[in-house]
Amino acid sequence: MEKSGNSAEPVVYRGLEGILAAETKVGFVDGQEGRLSYRGYDINTLAEQSNYEEVSYLLIYGHMPNQKEYTEYVERLRSESDLPEEVYDLIRKQAGKTHPMTSLRTAVSYLATFDVKESASDPESQEVMAVKLVAKMPTLVGAIHRIFSGKDILKPDRELSYAANFFYMSLGRRPDPMESKMMDTALIIHADHGMNASTFSALVTISTMADMYSAITSAISTLKGPLHGGANERALMMIQAIGSPGNAEKALSEMVERKEKIMGFGHRVYKVYDPRAKILKQYAQYITEKNNKNLFLTANKIEELMINRFGSKGIFPNVDFYSGMVYSALGFKTEIFTPIFAVGRISGWVARSLEYIQDNKLFRPKAKYVGEKGPLKYKPINERD
Amino acid sequence: MEKSGNSAEPVVYRGLEGILAAETKVGFVDGQEGRLSYRGYDINTLAEQSNYEEVSYLLIYGHMPNQKEYTEYVERLRSESDLPEEVYDLIRKQAGKTHPMTSLRTAVSYLATFDVKESASDPESQEVMAVKLVAKMPTLVGAIHRIFSGKDILKPDRELSYAANFFYMSLGRRPDPMESKMMDTALIIHADHGMNASTFSALVTISTMADMYSAITSAISTLKGPLHGGANERALMMIQAIGSPGNAEKALSEMVERKEKIMGFGHRVYKVYDPRAKILKQYAQYITEKNNKNLFLTANKIEELMINRFGSKGIFPNVDFYSGMVYSALGFKTEIFTPIFAVGRISGWVARSLEYIQDNKLFRPKAKYVGEKGPLKYKPINERD
Repeated sequence: MEKSGNSAEPVVYRGLEGILAAETKVGFVDGQEGRLSYRGYDINTLAEQSNYEEVSYLLIYGHMPNQKEYTEYVERLRSESDLPEEVYDLIRKQAGKTHPMTSLRTAVSYLATFDVKESASDPESQEVMAVKLVAKMPTLVGAIHRIFSGKDILKPDRELSYAANFFYMSLGRRPDPMESKMMDTALIIHADHGMNASTFSALVTISTMADMYSAITSAISTLKGPLHGGANERALMMIQAIGSPGNAEKALSEMVERKEKIMGFGHRVYKVYDPRAKILKQYAQYITEKNNKNLFLTANKIEELMINRFGSKGIFPNVDFYSGMVYSALGFKTEIFTPIFAVGRISGWVARSLEYIQDNKLFRPKAKYVGEKGPLKYKPINERD
Repeated sequence: MEKSGNSAEPVVYRGLEGILAAETKVGFVDGQEGRLSYRGYDINTLAEQSNYEEVSYLLIYGHMPNQKEYTEYVERLRSESDLPEEVYDLIRKQAGKTHPMTSLRTAVSYLATFDVKESASDPESQEVMAVKLVAKMPTLVGAIHRIFSGKDILKPDRELSYAANFFYMSLGRRPDPMESKMMDTALIIHADHGMNASTFSALVTISTMADMYSAITSAISTLKGPLHGGANERALMMIQAIGSPGNAEKALSEMVERKEKIMGFGHRVYKVYDPRAKILKQYAQYITEKNNKNLFLTANKIEELMINRFGSKGIFPNVDFYSGMVYSALGFKTEIFTPIFAVGRISGWVARSLEYIQDNKLFRPKAKYVGEKGPLKYKPINERD
């Protein structure tokens, strides 16, 4: 924990690092062992055997759905997946003017306008809003990706799975089975990850008994920051700029010399290989094999050099190092990488928000005042320096 | 501090109560002595002698402006006070459909679309966004109040002060000098108040290096919750429902019997009379004198009974107990009370956000995992209960 002040002074917990702010049963990150689990299920098990709909249900309701629960949940997601025309219009109006995350933040906030129960804060109403937001997130991001790419918006295709539908609405074609699997896995492994800044932001908002639209608007606002979202975009740009395995050693040593941050490495929580990076690395290798093998080999060389030469002890690639490469190869624009993160994370955001309000406590930490004690005398303006 | 877990277990700080999450020089709340000061100036001094423009400058820049600085700042606020037509249109479209705070949240988020530097996170760009948001907040809330009241939107009047302009854009007429002073004071005393939930929310968002629009969108999302904003609305409704001083004793004893919360009393920070309530009480008495004297007398009787009979030790009226009465007498609809809070608080939000990024540290507390340890075995769906 980073603290400030001497022993006689009250301790300031900068960034709240190391402070336990809540209890949770939703998910667990074991940074020492490199394990991530949702409700007790290992992320590798879920990535291999489950799908996003099931994982979303698991995170929100705490158990794997049986056949009836699954069918009902999938039907709820499908029937809620479309957007009001006004929201599509707002997204269209922002074409060419704004960051996709600004568009997403505004659209999610605007969605509340079309929900008569938008200001309710009882758990039942919050659950209804939560499922609506899970259902609409791929449609929102798909529409934003289309508009951002200068294409027409595509409405949800009710025959497709959650991940395949997101792929279709974003890219304008149905994915093949392997693309569908990659998309699904990418969403699953981003669905929850401890008390990260955007999740925490959702909890701070909902702790005032604000509605779920407000909580998710906060989460998106927080995810927009480059210290949280956006690292995969910059990791991909770095790999592309280095360009070939042969350039990696020289490029990295120059970056280390200039004390530049090497994007996509290290994590405040993981001290070993990020289990999500392991999964994505396989996909990155697979998807670049035909047309862009060199990109993967460059990344792999960078990883090898970072682990064995340039990184400090315990530096490994994180989830951002390979995810951008996968998204880009699937056909997504780099500017949409952070919104894709939001499509995955929506389930974690709402699951932890719903969990928090079951035993709610308003977040209200304190600040240590280190300013002018006063009371200062008020001087008329013409007597001021 | 409320903690959970036994001594061998790591402590969970529920609501982060008592935890110092940052240092600040912006403002100080002395809950024991009942003092509130901004940058060392006592709130009573500022309410009497200053105005909102000056207080806003003080909070953001750390000192009282000299004549040149003041003139320049006021000119910046005036020149930035208008909104893009698209934002007025969006507010119009929400007429009759949504909560004013939803409208405000969406409009602030949407404003970013019209700022080419909306995704910048350097301190200079953040300061520019901050001043724009201070300038536009009364225009946004004024427009929302007009639309919510079924009236046409009024553009800013550049001859008026910040507070008078807000009054004019909201209520459709220029205030008289006493109304103008009351409006100005109400905004001043709401401008900053320690690490409350909405301010904290802005800091969590901006700590990811997100832009100021994102931070303020988060703050508004958080202020929307009834545990934070909205208490003054409910306090006024309670006073109106009690209706006369003679009813107060019976009504309060019944509420205490039923263990109902008495709105507008008590505060997590103040253990004595809230200095803001003291100021507003005088205004409430003045403004109800002619037409609604009974309302003030009822409130005063409730206060007396709470302090001397029904409340626990140290229970006093807080800022929310008299503010609603003042706003209502000025002509504001109750649904707009929380957005008025936002017009005052915008300066505190941006001042503390700008201060935080000077020595930024990403907020990332932890959650204590108390769920299923696993690893659970994945069962096919037809084998689940």
